Amino acid sequence: MDDVLILNEADLRGAVKIDLAAIDAVEAAFAALAGDGVVMPPVLSMEFAEANGEVDVKTAYLPGFERFAIKVSPGFFDNPKIGLPSLNGLMVVLSAKTGLVEAVLLDNGYLTNVRTAAAGAVAARHLAPSQVRTAGVIGAGVQARLQMQAAHLVRPFEEVWVWAPRAEAAEDCAGWLQETTGAVAHVAQNAEEVVRRSQLVVTTTPAREPVIMADWLHEGLHITCMGSDQHGKNELAARALVDADLYVCDRVSQCEIMGELRAAREAGLMTDRQPPELGQIITGAARGRLTEADVTICDLTGTGAQDTAIANAALDVVTAKGVGQRFSRQ
Amino acid sequence: MDDVLILNEADLRGAVKIDLAAIDAVEAAFAALAGDGVVMPPVLSMEFAEANGEVDVKTAYLPGFERFAIKVSPGFFDNPKIGLPSLNGLMVVLSAKTGLVEAVLLDNGYLTNVRTAAAGAVAARHLAPSQVRTAGVIGAGVQARLQMQAAHLVRPFEEVWVWAPRAEAAEDCAGWLQETTGAVAHVAQNAEEVVRRSQLVVTTTPAREPVIMADWLHEGLHITCMGSDQHGKNELAARALVDADLYVCDRVSQCEIMGELRAAREAGLMTDRQPPELGQIITGAARGRLTEADVTICDLTGTGAQDTAIANAALDVVTAKGVGQRFSRQ
Repeated sequence: MDDVLILNEADLRGAVKIDLAAIDAVEAAFAALAGDGVVMPPVLSMEFAEANGEVDVKTAYLPGFERFAIKVSPGFFDNPKIGLPSLNGLMVVLSAKTGLVEAVLLDNGYLTNVRTAAAGAVAARHLAPSQVRTAGVIGAGVQARLQMQAAHLVRPFEEVWVWAPRAEAAEDCAGWLQETTGAVAHVAQNAEEVVRRSQLVVTTTPAREPVIMADWLHEGLHITCMGSDQHGKNELAARALVDADLYVCDRVSQCEIMGELRAAREAGLMTDRQPPELGQIITGAARGRLTEADVTICDLTGTGAQDTAIANAALDVVTAKGVGQRFSRQ
Repeated sequence: MDDVLILNEADLRGAVKIDLAAIDAVEAAFAALAGDGVVMPPVLSMEFAEANGEVDVKTAYLPGFERFAIKVSPGFFDNPKIGLPSLNGLMVVLSAKTGLVEAVLLDNGYLTNVRTAAAGAVAARHLAPSQVRTAGVIGAGVQARLQMQAAHLVRPFEEVWVWAPRAEAAEDCAGWLQETTGAVAHVAQNAEEVVRRSQLVVTTTPAREPVIMADWLHEGLHITCMGSDQHGKNELAARALVDADLYVCDRVSQCEIMGELRAAREAGLMTDRQPPELGQIITGAARGRLTEADVTICDLTGTGAQDTAIANAALDVVTAKGVGQRFSRQ
């Protein structure tokens, strides 16, 4: 009780992996989010125009979770010019019973990467066709890799297609995916080819104009968009949300501010619809995919609930293993 | 650059005191708050009804300050029943240039106590009559002591009057104040006596009904209210804000939600006034006290700017002294 546990990125990389345990933890958080007693305030955001930086603070208390996380995520995008990483940050983990700070996780965004990929896998588990032979990803960064790695655990596809504006980056990503998942990986000619060939697609871009058009949708397709996490970002043509058989939000109140729903509503579409949330699909409070032929879309803006989930999972592991350094709080 | 500095409460108590350096640092923060380029989002608040707890997150970026703090303040008020403190918490300190986490200050609210008392002294320095023979405080807790201790540094009063509902607590507080400041300390019969006798009064209560009435105001008086920091709290009769020659906010946007201004406006008063802020008095952008006979009031709800100020001051000291433990962020 008198100690705070301090963990750094190496400790956390050793303890928390993209695996079914992480996916199950994030799934439980989404389920809790659909129930009563949740406390999830709006994201606290700061912009630093001069330094080309931003900081987000996310948090959520979820009934049934022993602890809750308050996550500080800075992104300062000129840092690479002076040899520093753009992203760093940490999670403060507090007891949900006493409010005492139990741990500080100096993860530099690693846990965010894991919980974001895990959320994609939760969406795939509950919304993608039951049989996915071919998966595809738009983008070739860290999340492109981790999203496909996580998705493969719940839909073990045989083939994966990658597209990104820089062909070399797409090649690298495809190589990594083939090695990591065992699926045969290809670089596509364009985003359209990725969508047309796949039953499961994930978009992982910072796009401000759609990278997927509505007329590329086809029977038996699920798309997860995880790039839009700020007002102004947009990966999917607004029309696609209307054309799909089902459009699902991680959190409606966030998607209408910073997700695909925001862009669609600004285009005058989806204005009279209150979409279901992923947690409601998980608990059965809302209906998911009805047939293998359905087209489904899941809009992930990233929630404090996922941070609380992964922080709890991380602390369970490191406490059991005795990893980290105890620091007197007095 | 590769290290995060971790400091605990003992380190910080050793490094940061209620002194003119702390008061000057907080004054500089208020001055910056009156200028351009400030980023101070609304307080992020969470309530935990079942656990009788709350968590606030405050932050502010201030131009001219090397770093900014993100403060996490939990208060779980049933903790004493199980032998734990109600309050704990920490500040995360980030570089304003790169967003890198530089330090984690496990202060359990100590720095908040210091910066809150320092803000009271800043208000006294800029608003109280130049000669204060007698000061008074309503309340007898930690802030009652620290507010008077800090005020004495800028207005070295000879006499101090204390009132609190529990006579024993008031006696203890008076004894502590006499020992700490050297002023002759008395326990008053009631709050009215404190106000009538003093040129400088600070209210430090969690009151939800006024503890100071408007008809107690007299020539040559300054009152600082620092207890109201949440919607529903209220220390000063609404009429007093109108009757005073000058009413000043730490931040208008906060005072109208959680300060005395909120209560006054709900009572239908002050509705057409846009009060000046303390920072504007400091920089000269707004006029302060005009004569020694004026009645002035300052409403302090507590700002992230003060946290950023005290965190910078703390880090300057501990870095110079080599206090704290360095922890690899990788």
